[in-house]
Amino acid sequence: MANRTLRSLVFLLVMAAGLSARVFAEDGYDLWLRYQPLAAPVQAELRQAAAHIVAPGARTPTLQAAVDELVRGIGGLARQVPAIPESAESGAILLVKPDTLPGNLKGKVSFDGLGQEGYRLLSLGGAQTLIAANSDIGLLYGSFALLRHLQTGGGLQGLDISDSPRLQRRMLNHWDNPDRTVERGYAGQSIWDWWKLPDHLDARYTDYARANASVGINGTVLNNVNAKAEMLTPRWIEKAAAVADVLRPYGIRVYLSARFSAPFELGATATADPLDPAVRDWWAKKADEIYATIPDFGGFLVKANSEGQPGPQDYGRSHADGANMLAAALKPHGGIVLWRAFVYSETDATDRAKQAYAEFKPLDGQFADNVTVQVKNGPIDFQPREPIHPLFGAMPETSVTAEFQITKEYLGFATHLAYLGPMYEEVLKTDTFRGGEGQTVAKLLMAEPLSGIAGVANIGSDRNWSGSHFDQANWYTFGRLAWSPEGSAADIAREWAAMTFSRDREVIDKITGMMMASREAVVDYMTPMGLAHLMGTGHHYGPAPWVNDLARPEWNPAYYHRADAGGIGFDRTATGSNAAVQYAAPHAALYGNRQTVPPELLLWFHRAGWDEALPSGRTVWAELVYHYDRGVAAVGTMRRTWAGLEVRVDPARFRDVSDFLAIQEQEAIWWRDACLAYFAAVSGRALPPGTRLPAHPLSWYQAQQFPYAPGHP
Amino acid sequence: MANRTLRSLVFLLVMAAGLSARVFAEDGYDLWLRYQPLAAPVQAELRQAAAHIVAPGARTPTLQAAVDELVRGIGGLARQVPAIPESAESGAILLVKPDTLPGNLKGKVSFDGLGQEGYRLLSLGGAQTLIAANSDIGLLYGSFALLRHLQTGGGLQGLDISDSPRLQRRMLNHWDNPDRTVERGYAGQSIWDWWKLPDHLDARYTDYARANASVGINGTVLNNVNAKAEMLTPRWIEKAAAVADVLRPYGIRVYLSARFSAPFELGATATADPLDPAVRDWWAKKADEIYATIPDFGGFLVKANSEGQPGPQDYGRSHADGANMLAAALKPHGGIVLWRAFVYSETDATDRAKQAYAEFKPLDGQFADNVTVQVKNGPIDFQPREPIHPLFGAMPETSVTAEFQITKEYLGFATHLAYLGPMYEEVLKTDTFRGGEGQTVAKLLMAEPLSGIAGVANIGSDRNWSGSHFDQANWYTFGRLAWSPEGSAADIAREWAAMTFSRDREVIDKITGMMMASREAVVDYMTPMGLAHLMGTGHHYGPAPWVNDLARPEWNPAYYHRADAGGIGFDRTATGSNAAVQYAAPHAALYGNRQTVPPELLLWFHRAGWDEALPSGRTVWAELVYHYDRGVAAVGTMRRTWAGLEVRVDPARFRDVSDFLAIQEQEAIWWRDACLAYFAAVSGRALPPGTRLPAHPLSWYQAQQFPYAPGHP
Repeated sequence: MANRTLRSLVFLLVMAAGLSARVFAEDGYDLWLRYQPLAAPVQAELRQAAAHIVAPGARTPTLQAAVDELVRGIGGLARQVPAIPESAESGAILLVKPDTLPGNLKGKVSFDGLGQEGYRLLSLGGAQTLIAANSDIGLLYGSFALLRHLQTGGGLQGLDISDSPRLQRRMLNHWDNPDRTVERGYAGQSIWDWWKLPDHLDARYTDYARANASVGINGTVLNNVNAKAEMLTPRWIEKAAAVADVLRPYGIRVYLSARFSAPFELGATATADPLDPAVRDWWAKKADEIYATIPDFGGFLVKANSEGQPGPQDYGRSHADGANMLAAALKPHGGIVLWRAFVYSETDATDRAKQAYAEFKPLDGQFADNVTVQVKNGPIDFQPREPIHPLFGAMPETSVTAEFQITKEYLGFATHLAYLGPMYEEVLKTDTFRGGEGQTVAKLLMAEPLSGIAGVANIGSDRNWSGSHFDQANWYTFGRLAWSPEGSAADIAREWAAMTFSRDREVIDKITGMMMASREAVVDYMTPMGLAHLMGTGHHYGPAPWVNDLARPEWNPAYYHRADAGGIGFDRTATGSNAAVQYAAPHAALYGNRQTVPPELLLWFHRAGWDEALPSGRTVWAELVYHYDRGVAAVGTMRRTWAGLEVRVDPARFRDVSDFLAIQEQEAIWWRDACLAYFAAVSGRALPPGTRLPAHPLSWYQAQQFPYAPGHP
Repeated sequence: MANRTLRSLVFLLVMAAGLSARVFAEDGYDLWLRYQPLAAPVQAELRQAAAHIVAPGARTPTLQAAVDELVRGIGGLARQVPAIPESAESGAILLVKPDTLPGNLKGKVSFDGLGQEGYRLLSLGGAQTLIAANSDIGLLYGSFALLRHLQTGGGLQGLDISDSPRLQRRMLNHWDNPDRTVERGYAGQSIWDWWKLPDHLDARYTDYARANASVGINGTVLNNVNAKAEMLTPRWIEKAAAVADVLRPYGIRVYLSARFSAPFELGATATADPLDPAVRDWWAKKADEIYATIPDFGGFLVKANSEGQPGPQDYGRSHADGANMLAAALKPHGGIVLWRAFVYSETDATDRAKQAYAEFKPLDGQFADNVTVQVKNGPIDFQPREPIHPLFGAMPETSVTAEFQITKEYLGFATHLAYLGPMYEEVLKTDTFRGGEGQTVAKLLMAEPLSGIAGVANIGSDRNWSGSHFDQANWYTFGRLAWSPEGSAADIAREWAAMTFSRDREVIDKITGMMMASREAVVDYMTPMGLAHLMGTGHHYGPAPWVNDLARPEWNPAYYHRADAGGIGFDRTATGSNAAVQYAAPHAALYGNRQTVPPELLLWFHRAGWDEALPSGRTVWAELVYHYDRGVAAVGTMRRTWAGLEVRVDPARFRDVSDFLAIQEQEAIWWRDACLAYFAAVSGRALPPGTRLPAHPLSWYQAQQFPYAPGHP
């Protein structure tokens, strides 16, 4: 008998092992919501403390989602699926709102300051843990927060955490096309299987909603800002509505990018002039039509009069005229317009970095109150490093939303490990000096009447969602910073690493170290010292600083680095384009002065002679070489660190990451060699003694072609 | 103690349950290789009989793959991972070749007739089971065959099965482009992540190899027949080589589609004239270069002088000149040329159905012995039903390979359930009457000196590989028929259903019933009675029989149905294009005669008046309506049958299939309504009394546009 029991036990163990072998084959699909079993003693504790999930009150889809997630999460962490009784018990997690608070707790729990989306996690002792909120969505956010707390090693004893989002709109922007290609997407096709919508809902849509809700993202623009008019036809509105129905319980609203010329292109009007009554009427009716299908539709994101997109200027009207026309259509339904400030006209030959400010600053105060101007983090275009955008704080009478890029268009696509947290943090914590000192970008965003932040998604149909395991961190971190813009990229990296890879402190330290150093490494091996836009034409893959023959000046890398025998850099001071004066006075002074400009922005604002000495003691030329070499070395360090983690992380993801780091090192060397070969040639200078020479002559690098690079429209 | 043991037991059970909940969440990725646990008593038996896997001799990658698959398969089926001892034991599966046969078996086991790829499964009693073969690949095929035998309910007692492939080359043709789009692909992107090759090998490549080896596929053309010249550059050859390295242990050779003008386009030669010495030399050196990287490279697939592709005719040379030039380059390395007979020139205005025969028949005997002419199953282009291609048997001095389409370009893309087994079988079992009666297409293919069959793959990056769960059956069945061209589509459907969905006899019966009726349903609701090519222009989605304004006559549906007030159908008899005489005399007579032509091909070969009476007793017009209605009804029946299988199949796949069947029914009705609305208009006839009228006027159907349909180049 004992013997047979033993055999059954062994068999079950083998079986469980066999199964777990497959269950735990990590392909990245579970993201940071893996809920892997905790250490045995902690598990036992949790099984006690979370034996029951109690959610009084109407079981709305949102409350149900919260309960389901807790069941799933605790079922995994504690290896015991909690029961869901009707009323409070010991060993329970209680999800409560003011009106569903059990009698014995009335008056004892404060919901102050939680707002409509915040939550409070409160241990009551007696093995009761409260998730308290003023709304079901608050309870869902609180449930994810509790699970994050547990996943990262936190316990339930003496727990009292309150948190609420600092921005109203925390949005993803998908640059997804109706043919399921993704502009600047490096993670497969669009996750929106448009063709089968609305009749078939991929189970993945729900996991997308869970992942976003877990970090507090509450809005998503489904389609590319380079929008197709068809997206606003009934057939496509139906598709968007089907997605909206899946996302709604998770507190996520659907938005659409609107093509400004849609009524004209669809043959409904003779013009798209925003002041034309027929056009205004078409948009008003279109808004009615959309809200009839998607009652909580968020609104329109618009890219107008930029890179060939149509816009109000085609009719001699202003951005404000265009935005306000759409705003009027959405207003009755509570929708908003996100009007992008990323513009450059076909003709303007002055400094491209100045154009958005020049066009939008004069319009301050002219935008309707349900319009927000969506401004990229920097004045050019998501480069590895840019100064902040001069429009931050420059439009006190206008709501401004910040736009970051999560997909790595300019930072190595999916294969390079580049954690963007430090870049987001760098921007958000930069002082704009608008209205006095300490007015960081984050503080200004939080103070907007219509506050928000947007990230261009890196999500696709790839099994691991983001094209690489580490790129999941950029999605996660964007969401966490959108919730709390003054958060720390390093803390978030640790949190993500613990949930995604391992709870082992040493592993977390090493992975966090790799992540925190990674973005500066990319800056170094691609565009150091304030350089920008040195990449290949069109696909933006690889180095091409030599390109100087494209139709428009600002399409050419040479336009940005301006390197010649005399020196390198873009003079944006008074002696040059004077873009520096678009910033608040203290910044204008700081940036405009060769002595005070931050070294990492030197060549952004100044032209420097190759032999000028820098505070580092190196000449400009030597400093450039130094940075390229440092960038390559940093990737080598990442590779070695990761190699040291073999067996500490699962074999599948270990191999994936190892492969990608090898690619990154090859490409870092390629960037370094190609750029130095080119700058050596134009500067007429030799590489400093002891420096490794480029592997190929300049002509070899110039001959490389990449017609099939991904993400290129 | 007993108590604690019990608790552990319960805990383990809970755990295992929890795990299996996730393990067995069916997303289709495992295809027919699911290896789900057998019924308890059978499991116990198998644990006894397959406790050990014994594979004497050198552990080549192929032999290792066989052992790994048996371990995986039996580990799943018997829930016990077999041990792998050095020498034979009781309760063992032995993988043996003549030279590794254990002493006690010498002379007792015959390997006769197994050939180089065949296998024998032999029960020796004493709980020993032999997998015998003359090669490691034979052992791998035998291992998959044994697992299939077990998965479909077979036992090991008295087992003695021998099998070997009847065709040398059993190939997939991927129409995959270097930008990872797939022409006529409805399952996501190309599974070849070209961009990350050769540096990163997706784990999926190995599962692709396993799935193909499990049905005996031994060759794959990686890229689209509409080929890019770059595919033959070193950078891309390296990528192909990396894939070849993964596939090699599974007996799968890599082939490439070659663009005929490659040397010219790549700037290496001034022409692509196949008789030009520089061109011949370029191809010879290119072959050397490829074989230096891919020693077992299979050869080139070529689409030339068809649909705008370059070819020898551009230089006044023949298909034979072009094919032989490439053949000469490959010959020293043992490679072959697969030269497609799917041609139509820009100019020829005669019956398109006649063109391949007209161009190729005169070339019989002129092709080198390492060339095979790859002929589509029918004379037009993969329509739901066509007569066999007249070239089958018409080139006795030339090797001919048959080309089928697995991807459903003309049968409803991924969403329609259309099991193609019956179509493949219909073609393979058709008598060509070439060289006497009984010379079926299958027999002719098997008799070729260079024998083979090719299927245009339906595989993509979708999690379920084929875009729908049921489309996996078309991949599976193509492979099984490639192995054994005289096999039965019904038997294969049962086998597939048992492995893919359930071992429950009733479930298998119902699913097989759905599958076997499905293709005729599509014929009925799309192109009944021998009609063809009625679909939308370009994307080939949905009905458009009215299209008649395209530049080339044979691009227009109206060209094919020729419907007017007088009648419908394409006269291919002596009074018309006389395409019928391209067939062997008995067929020519049969098809050419209005009385003897098979009813399902009536309008393919004959023009018929709307009011002509048919053997069915219906007029041609009434018969057409009858077929369209029957097709729609058949889809309704499939839906009801599937609905009856709820809880008998897993919820995830049940829902997916339900959604798709709903789409199929909508689209069947759309096809029926649009075609009948159109034919009613041109014929000037009303629908028979009691027939449901189309939901919309003809103009509505004509107005539908599908600019973003998938699979459209």
